[in-house]
Amino acid sequence: MKRLNIITLGVKNLIKSRSFYESLFDWKPKDEESKDIAFYNMGGWMIALYPRNLLAEDITIPADGNGFSGITLAHNVVKKSDVKKILDRAKSLGANIIKPAQDVFWGGYSGYFQDIDGHFWEVAYNPFTKTLEDGTLDLPKI
Amino acid sequence: MKRLNIITLGVKNLIKSRSFYESLFDWKPKDEESKDIAFYNMGGWMIALYPRNLLAEDITIPADGNGFSGITLAHNVVKKSDVKKILDRAKSLGANIIKPAQDVFWGGYSGYFQDIDGHFWEVAYNPFTKTLEDGTLDLPKI
Repeated sequence: MKRLNIITLGVKNLIKSRSFYESLFDWKPKDEESKDIAFYNMGGWMIALYPRNLLAEDITIPADGNGFSGITLAHNVVKKSDVKKILDRAKSLGANIIKPAQDVFWGGYSGYFQDIDGHFWEVAYNPFTKTLEDGTLDLPKI
Repeated sequence: MKRLNIITLGVKNLIKSRSFYESLFDWKPKDEESKDIAFYNMGGWMIALYPRNLLAEDITIPADGNGFSGITLAHNVVKKSDVKKILDRAKSLGANIIKPAQDVFWGGYSGYFQDIDGHFWEVAYNPFTKTLEDGTLDLPKI
């Protein structure tokens, strides 16, 4: 199957952004010494943090850009009460709460924060697609 | 473990973008009838396609934005020769090739395309972190 294997988030300061994500989500980098790029194993795929200007350089485009990126990331939680807990934790780590935890039109409960590099994360409780104890979604095996 | 569970790509036209991704990567939507949003099961997590203006509205921010989004997505391949094959396929489906397939500084072989909504994808062969036949990366189980 053809998959998405790596998502790279451009960051201003790798040390600060590592600290943000490792504190918020308890992620452990593949290599603790990661000074140039940090990879996090999500189970067969990875998230990477990499300086934004170097990421643009790698694509061979200018690093200019502002406003809405057109991409959102979501972290789903097991219990409804975890939504506010994670949003509060993100705020205490320097994120902006953009949309406080609330009932939403599709029947779930969620909110959004913008991380210290401007990326938008939804924190969501979805009563239809359950989050399992290992943090994955309850979806058919593929 | 706290994970990233859903990545949503904002799109201009859901039918066209579904067609692009379903043709390029052979993705099958969770619900074939998806008219408002399309979800693709990646194995415990999902990619979603959703109209960009509605995505901004969901966050409660303006949809304005241009230039580099600060996020890249990567599809890794099993064989070096697959990189050019996928880039060619993306081009034939309307994507722009931004960086043609080439040897890159970290020891791999890769290129970038920009999809019909402006999102940047790297297509990469990585000789150090192998891509398994099921399309996942050869990483420790978590």
